[in-house]
Amino acid sequence: MSWLEQSIMHTRGVARGQVGATHQLPESRQGKFHYTIGPYSDPVLEIQPGDRVVIETRDAFEGKVRTEQDLPSKVLTVPFLNPQNGPIMIAGAEKGDVVAVYIESIKPRGDNPRGTCCLIPRFGALTGTDYTATLNDPLPEITRKIDLDEEGVYWSQRVTLPYRPHIGTLSLSPEIDSINSLTPDTHGGNMDVPDMGPGSITYLPVRSPGGRLFIGDAHACQGDGEVCGTAVEFASTTTIHVELIKNWAIAWPRLENDALLMTIGSARPLEDATRIAYTELVRWMSEEYGFDRWDAYMMLSQCGQVRLGNFVDPKYTVGSAIRKKYLAAKAA
Amino acid sequence: MSWLEQSIMHTRGVARGQVGATHQLPESRQGKFHYTIGPYSDPVLEIQPGDRVVIETRDAFEGKVRTEQDLPSKVLTVPFLNPQNGPIMIAGAEKGDVVAVYIESIKPRGDNPRGTCCLIPRFGALTGTDYTATLNDPLPEITRKIDLDEEGVYWSQRVTLPYRPHIGTLSLSPEIDSINSLTPDTHGGNMDVPDMGPGSITYLPVRSPGGRLFIGDAHACQGDGEVCGTAVEFASTTTIHVELIKNWAIAWPRLENDALLMTIGSARPLEDATRIAYTELVRWMSEEYGFDRWDAYMMLSQCGQVRLGNFVDPKYTVGSAIRKKYLAAKAA
Amino acid sequence: MSWLEQSIMHTRGVARGQVGATHQLPESRQGKFHYTIGPYSDPVLEIQPGDRVVIETRDAFEGKVRTEQDLPSKVLTVPFLNPQNGPIMIAGAEKGDVVAVYIESIKPRGDNPRGTCCLIPRFGALTGTDYTATLNDPLPEITRKIDLDEEGVYWSQRVTLPYRPHIGTLSLSPEIDSINSLTPDTHGGNMDVPDMGPGSITYLPVRSPGGRLFIGDAHACQGDGEVCGTAVEFASTTTIHVELIKNWAIAWPRLENDALLMTIGSARPLEDATRIAYTELVRWMSEEYGFDRWDAYMMLSQCGQVRLGNFVDPKYTVGSAIRKKYLAAKAA
Amino acid sequence: MSWLEQSIMHTRGVARGQVGATHQLPESRQGKFHYTIGPYSDPVLEIQPGDRVVIETRDAFEGKVRTEQDLPSKVLTVPFLNPQNGPIMIAGAEKGDVVAVYIESIKPRGDNPRGTCCLIPRFGALTGTDYTATLNDPLPEITRKIDLDEEGVYWSQRVTLPYRPHIGTLSLSPEIDSINSLTPDTHGGNMDVPDMGPGSITYLPVRSPGGRLFIGDAHACQGDGEVCGTAVEFASTTTIHVELIKNWAIAWPRLENDALLMTIGSARPLEDATRIAYTELVRWMSEEYGFDRWDAYMMLSQCGQVRLGNFVDPKYTVGSAIRKKYLAAKAA
Repeated sequence: MSWLEQSIMHTRGVARGQVGATHQLPESRQGKFHYTIGPYSDPVLEIQPGDRVVIETRDAFEGKVRTEQDLPSKVLTVPFLNPQNGPIMIAGAEKGDVVAVYIESIKPRGDNPRGTCCLIPRFGALTGTDYTATLNDPLPEITRKIDLDEEGVYWSQRVTLPYRPHIGTLSLSPEIDSINSLTPDTHGGNMDVPDMGPGSITYLPVRSPGGRLFIGDAHACQGDGEVCGTAVEFASTTTIHVELIKNWAIAWPRLENDALLMTIGSARPLEDATRIAYTELVRWMSEEYGFDRWDAYMMLSQCGQVRLGNFVDPKYTVGSAIRKKYLAAKAA
Repeated sequence: MSWLEQSIMHTRGVARGQVGATHQLPESRQGKFHYTIGPYSDPVLEIQPGDRVVIETRDAFEGKVRTEQDLPSKVLTVPFLNPQNGPIMIAGAEKGDVVAVYIESIKPRGDNPRGTCCLIPRFGALTGTDYTATLNDPLPEITRKIDLDEEGVYWSQRVTLPYRPHIGTLSLSPEIDSINSLTPDTHGGNMDVPDMGPGSITYLPVRSPGGRLFIGDAHACQGDGEVCGTAVEFASTTTIHVELIKNWAIAWPRLENDALLMTIGSARPLEDATRIAYTELVRWMSEEYGFDRWDAYMMLSQCGQVRLGNFVDPKYTVGSAIRKKYLAAKAA
Repeated sequence: MSWLEQSIMHTRGVARGQVGATHQLPESRQGKFHYTIGPYSDPVLEIQPGDRVVIETRDAFEGKVRTEQDLPSKVLTVPFLNPQNGPIMIAGAEKGDVVAVYIESIKPRGDNPRGTCCLIPRFGALTGTDYTATLNDPLPEITRKIDLDEEGVYWSQRVTLPYRPHIGTLSLSPEIDSINSLTPDTHGGNMDVPDMGPGSITYLPVRSPGGRLFIGDAHACQGDGEVCGTAVEFASTTTIHVELIKNWAIAWPRLENDALLMTIGSARPLEDATRIAYTELVRWMSEEYGFDRWDAYMMLSQCGQVRLGNFVDPKYTVGSAIRKKYLAAKAA
Repeated sequence: MSWLEQSIMHTRGVARGQVGATHQLPESRQGKFHYTIGPYSDPVLEIQPGDRVVIETRDAFEGKVRTEQDLPSKVLTVPFLNPQNGPIMIAGAEKGDVVAVYIESIKPRGDNPRGTCCLIPRFGALTGTDYTATLNDPLPEITRKIDLDEEGVYWSQRVTLPYRPHIGTLSLSPEIDSINSLTPDTHGGNMDVPDMGPGSITYLPVRSPGGRLFIGDAHACQGDGEVCGTAVEFASTTTIHVELIKNWAIAWPRLENDALLMTIGSARPLEDATRIAYTELVRWMSEEYGFDRWDAYMMLSQCGQVRLGNFVDPKYTVGSAIRKKYLAAKAA
């Protein structure tokens, strides 16, 4: 039996792992993309738990950065950044439930150079920004266009990086707020966790009827922290399998793959994102895996793993993980 | 000539300090209060620049904490907290303008004990919270009901505090986001700056047509930081005089009173809120008062003043100020 | 009876407010100044509780910045910065005691321009620094020489600031560490709290035999945060009155003046400095002034005051204060 | 040719990878262990570049926690924690040089249960602490004694963890400060980076004559962040090979192993530790590997790796790394 069959998604989901209908969400059907994630937009699709959706995502610059002469400050307009597909309504999803999103595949769309990476003034981890406000001159504005395919990301004459795609922004709607697609928080959002690629399941808390799933911001590869502020951004065809888990009260997003369980926190300062992730993991281990909470805490001090996701304004994201083999109860 | 006649509001406002019509916004007219500040709600009032509005605000608990036996966790429902009046549309306000709000008076409404102060589990500056997530047990939940009038706040048998009212939450709408009324940011929001009382002018950047003014959260008194998470919250009759300043591009809220000019930043960690406030003040001094920016920076190192506003989740607020007398050009 | 006679220093000190011998500590007697505060240096003076010491402090640049052409990066050598007088041994001081330092006066020494303010590359609150490490170019390096006397600080043609001197760095020795004189911590250090001027009493915890008092870094005036990294630094003749309070276990420095009691915390991020200061104040109110700790916490939310001291690397300092009138028990 | 032969240590070291004399530093020779790292202690050993040292380290509790009934608050005395061997003088080391420490092996000493893990009140990542000061009650105090050998760490009936030893605290002396052995900073110190195990080389900047190497705090295994505040602490026999690299001006510790180069920063808040690590890595790539600095910055956004070391008071440690294969110049 595969790990997927034993996953929380399959064992606790309404559809029990059965894959239902496949829906297409091409750009043409999406029409208007969204820059804010909330309950005030019109649904683009309604699906059943277990359904599969094939989605054409735009890149985070909405395709407006076409050449290395296209500078973000010229071709982009704040706050209309990081366009999202959706909202997709999941039938039966109610506050207190969880929507699970298994990513089957992420494939590049369009002609090369398909990839774009920009250095945007006053944006990124190693510069003064609008929040970490300093009087220094900004860094230079730079656009890189990058060839990529499913074999590799051809960064430069000197360096080829592996194609390791993931979804940067994945969300359900908050209950009453509408949050711009650059900000991660309890609803998901712009988490930029490299583990959120093909073969991963993300669990998101439902806060409004139907859940209202938004997705976008595919990255062909990304380092821990996405430090310059952007990854190798590209337009993708992303295929997801969506499930509904009833009555699972989680406070923050969670992730599962073949090897580990991860809890994800987003906050500033960075220690608070890490504290959230680790406290959620202690809670998960004690509530669902039979560990005493102090044993869980002390044990994570010996085997917990940390992944830095988004380390860029406006909020930072951290995943804390434990390998699933340590959660298995010892055979008698 | 009074400072008010020489204020930015009066000298640069569309109505040039002339007071226009007086509008009433009692609870009955407000009807539905708002818990999120954005462009998606229906206006309750439209006014002209220079108009005065008399507003019945509810307390931050919406009057549901009536006795010391009413605990927040029992009588309140997240995220329906900190109810706001509005949105009030200001005729002619467009993106790139500023709305000025002069607070004429804040008077208590209702019977004593009118004041409420609560210690809410996992909320406040000196406890683990949902963001500064720890495994500690929460602090006790406590409700205090407090008599108050315009002479004083009768905190306890032992201590009487002065009545120094201010408005905790004052906002214009963001352009596309809708932000819960507990969060301060560039749009204003839950800043909890004690200087924002009668005799102060707050300048807020317009981001959407009409500005969409929201107001609420009156405090009878408050210390720096509002550390336990709540002030002496009360229902008020607040009278404001509203102006419109065209084409004044400010990034964050600003405040003026008889003695000082203040810039206000909201962020985490607290140093970022302080950095924002001080960089905005350097910018203001150099752009509008003829200071070399390095002279301004070095001079604020000698005479800048800092006020800690909201020091509670989800974001912290800091005001940085300079006394107006230091801005006056030296007579020849 | 003056506030000083009723102060903790006078009522609990070994000498009960009696002023003993007056010692002179001119530059010539000090000889070698210190750049690190610890138990490994040779005492320069031994005094009795109640004694007065008249000290010639050097400015934070040790007088090496003589003209506006003297740039810090040329004339200074890291880590030999912020020279301190001392250590002064206080007879009878043992771990678990407190040394109280009442500042009688701070007077300028030397010829004008006596004052120096520098903008030092990668140092200050509004720039990337060695800790808040960014890739931005540094700000310009600038030296300002400033005339000053006991009437005023003549900042520029346009601006005269009041002469409001204080001591930037005041310390007892840690038990086993030796900490550079730029860093504030539980031992005191470079706190840069403007309230630490003439008329104030600072209470410092004793950690090693004799306490080992260090003092230096006089400022002619300083704004909240000392944001550009330096104040109006000057060489002073500072007169202090020193007392010993036996068996008073405080964890962090505290301050008293005619109007208020203050607790002082130093840490990063800035919220931790503020948390330390406020928790120490809650503790003080509940342990020594008969307040229930939750009453103290909730009351400080209404009347606590915050002073930002050092807001520059390597650690930030915050003072939290309560007015003494609120601590008085209500008359029957 | 092995990676070690091609390492910076071997190619740039004074001894060019030749292993010299082997010195023994058993507990008996060490005699007095050190709790503060500075220039004021007496050397225990002088070695030549290229020499090997076999060191008996004590555990971080100095062996005083013998049973699960021994609580830290009873058997330990602050600040006498985390005992360090040394200082070892490296002949010829001067300010501006680097000392390289290759860890050959870390083996357990003493009888089982050799491992100790404690939950110490107000210490750890998921609790209010002396710095992140809150009014919450502390977590319980707990001692765990753990059997371990070179095959595994027998955490509980249910869980066995791999034996993956590393050195928690490795330092050269600061120039004039003496820093307690719990604090990491530019000198090294209590970094708790799990990569610092057998097969790794750590590069530390020399600040005082002879470098003055201190070492201690072996961990049998540790998760990212050491979140409960302690790892599986144990007494070890650790064998190191020490080299001297002349005239290599690094600001912070660096690490090399077969696969990657890592830069290490220690600061609070956690974002500053991460900023330090990544800016040092950009600098390294541009100064020594021929990358344009903006190319390096943008490329790390795609392939940089982050390791969370110490996430506990008083400072946090982060390592940023790049795989060495990406640094190789492309063959023509």
